[in-house]
Amino acid sequence: MTDRQPLSTEPYKGVRDFYPADWGKMQALFNRTRELLASYGYEEYNASPLERAELYESKGNEEIVNEQTYTFTDRGDRRVTLRPEMTPSLARMVAAKRRELTYPLRWFSIGNRFRYERMQKGRLREFYQTDIDLVGLPEGEADLEMVTLAHDLLIAFGASEADFSIHVNSRKLLRLASEVAGLAEGEHARHYWQLIDRKSKMSKEEFESARKEFTADPLAVIEAGTDAGVAAEKARLESFIETLKARSVGNAVLDLDVVRGFDYYTGTVFEIFDTNPENARSLFGGGRYDGLVTLFGGDPIPAVGFAFGDVTLMDFLTTHGYAVHIAASADIYVGTPSPEDLPAARSFADELRKSGVRVFMNLAEKSLGDQVKEAVKRGIPYFAAFGKNEAETGTVRLKTLATSSEEEIPRGEVAARVMH
Amino acid sequence: MTDRQPLSTEPYKGVRDFYPADWGKMQALFNRTRELLASYGYEEYNASPLERAELYESKGNEEIVNEQTYTFTDRGDRRVTLRPEMTPSLARMVAAKRRELTYPLRWFSIGNRFRYERMQKGRLREFYQTDIDLVGLPEGEADLEMVTLAHDLLIAFGASEADFSIHVNSRKLLRLASEVAGLAEGEHARHYWQLIDRKSKMSKEEFESARKEFTADPLAVIEAGTDAGVAAEKARLESFIETLKARSVGNAVLDLDVVRGFDYYTGTVFEIFDTNPENARSLFGGGRYDGLVTLFGGDPIPAVGFAFGDVTLMDFLTTHGYAVHIAASADIYVGTPSPEDLPAARSFADELRKSGVRVFMNLAEKSLGDQVKEAVKRGIPYFAAFGKNEAETGTVRLKTLATSSEEEIPRGEVAARVMH
Repeated sequence: MTDRQPLSTEPYKGVRDFYPADWGKMQALFNRTRELLASYGYEEYNASPLERAELYESKGNEEIVNEQTYTFTDRGDRRVTLRPEMTPSLARMVAAKRRELTYPLRWFSIGNRFRYERMQKGRLREFYQTDIDLVGLPEGEADLEMVTLAHDLLIAFGASEADFSIHVNSRKLLRLASEVAGLAEGEHARHYWQLIDRKSKMSKEEFESARKEFTADPLAVIEAGTDAGVAAEKARLESFIETLKARSVGNAVLDLDVVRGFDYYTGTVFEIFDTNPENARSLFGGGRYDGLVTLFGGDPIPAVGFAFGDVTLMDFLTTHGYAVHIAASADIYVGTPSPEDLPAARSFADELRKSGVRVFMNLAEKSLGDQVKEAVKRGIPYFAAFGKNEAETGTVRLKTLATSSEEEIPRGEVAARVMH
Repeated sequence: MTDRQPLSTEPYKGVRDFYPADWGKMQALFNRTRELLASYGYEEYNASPLERAELYESKGNEEIVNEQTYTFTDRGDRRVTLRPEMTPSLARMVAAKRRELTYPLRWFSIGNRFRYERMQKGRLREFYQTDIDLVGLPEGEADLEMVTLAHDLLIAFGASEADFSIHVNSRKLLRLASEVAGLAEGEHARHYWQLIDRKSKMSKEEFESARKEFTADPLAVIEAGTDAGVAAEKARLESFIETLKARSVGNAVLDLDVVRGFDYYTGTVFEIFDTNPENARSLFGGGRYDGLVTLFGGDPIPAVGFAFGDVTLMDFLTTHGYAVHIAASADIYVGTPSPEDLPAARSFADELRKSGVRVFMNLAEKSLGDQVKEAVKRGIPYFAAFGKNEAETGTVRLKTLATSSEEEIPRGEVAARVMH
């Protein structure tokens, strides 16, 4: 072991180490998400990040599949991909038990996703994503619930409607308009919509120049409103937004530039943007994808869902001053005047634990002064030394570390005092 | 999409899909673990499952490194391993911030680990493990806390001391006895201890025959007790077990056959076994590893820890009849007499949610009878239909599904009735 060069302490490139304070923030984010979703009857599921590679090769976003996945061959010659997104796993799981499940499914999953991306702000090779899906209901109320949930989640994190804006569009509208404009399904149409998708990341000149490669103009078809099918779908979308407003989702707008990268969307799509123009990235995104489970055979099952990543959400909350609250690691630090006091201190600590108190106990040989300093450093709010003396008198000197105030109280009253 | 063969719905070989009921059990296990550990002031950390391959090549268990890891080369020609265990990541993270951290660290992590193993009962290629470590304290109280925590965790899951047995040994004792017996450090000694480690999995004859390859007999040295150093370490171990008993850990025994696979252990080691002889696998295992951070340069930092996997623990709990409790997905199913009642039902549901109730709301066009059936199928305990009528009268007919009993109560009293 000692005749080697020291190993580097760096994590693998593009992933993060989560020390307790960092992971505490992530858990706070996850748990607030879980709470809100539970109040809507959503249930959490999970799958392995290891998936058979073919799951991603059969559909979807070419860029991700070809250039951005972690795909390798295992020792049994199977091609494996580290999941870049959750929706294909969800569709696979639903298809596997399509006849046993009770619909609608209100499901969510929180976990890591992997993309082999070039480094840039907010992009990592491993990030955490929450995926929320409502499976088994047709377009309408289900889509409204999805957008409302996305809105309510941001409000639950402390945001106000002025901080974000919900951009709604319809892939059906885009498809109908493409057909009318003479842009048939296929690679050409796909490139056109990819261009629209990237529009906000391009300068006006860049966009106009790229736009010239396409003679068809589906957006003009939508604006003209002369095709009945196109006009009907646009009217549905406008009414969708009006309904949202009537249900206290006041910051939804129609935005024909919202395309969403994945090919599997079939109806309503939406993205939520920070209203701060300096943070142009999409915070939440999703839509309706009624055909996805047909990849596994059988009839389509209607579905709508959305997802959000930890990095963009955390950036958003930090920028707007909505700090994520993390609790201290313990409610009280139980100190020991000397190592001989450990047995007495331990039974006091156990007594507190039985009342639900989180107790950090000293086991080291150090002075009480150093133990108090350690408690302060750890952000633990209370300190009490406990030894043979306290065991005899039954009285504890409880120190509130923020104010350095002290009070003598019976040992039986400590639990109630330190729990909030 | 339609001109292809349907995709298989199978997950990748050796990993599991967690449908909500399965994941609910896992979360119940994790959360009970988190609760107990929080009561001892332990903080949760995490790292990516992707680690640089060299982290595992430098030390440790040859079998795991050479034959059982998922190791591949990324698009940037870096060798990456999916972590087979957490301790190397922990050591790396501690080494990276060794001067900034406040010791002792009471840290734990819950997450997936990956091993490319041949399929057998209870062995999967992805499993969940909880790792608990106490870093920065020398042998003694810290080791006692670890064994006590392992014991208390099983008790917290419902087990009694008769269900499991804590086998304690000392790697220092084994090392000293090896030296006295003339079995020097190195491959030969390692093979000897690997044989002892596998003893419980072999027949008496197999073991005795393999044992003959070694002329040295360290176990005889320990039993003889004539070497002063060996006798002192054995006495320490016996006193350690006596102290555990005095602290209400009554099921610890000295077991010279406990070796633990990993090379990094330096002192006390322990494994917890099911007392049911039909389940011989180790449930929990751990020990002291004072040298691990030196792989990253700098002085040693003393550490002790243990880990347990989800599969063995779940098997143990199931076998002994300690079922893991999972809550229903919602407290109440709010039904709608007709789609026109949706707005009224929604505001009732929102009202309940604000009081902390988990509400599953019907959005589908189906009869009230079918909605009640659906609620029963979902295991939701209460059902209330809500529409224009209920909005006018302010009264709700609340159905308790287990008993099919009904009562009319004011809408404002429903939240208190359905929350436990």
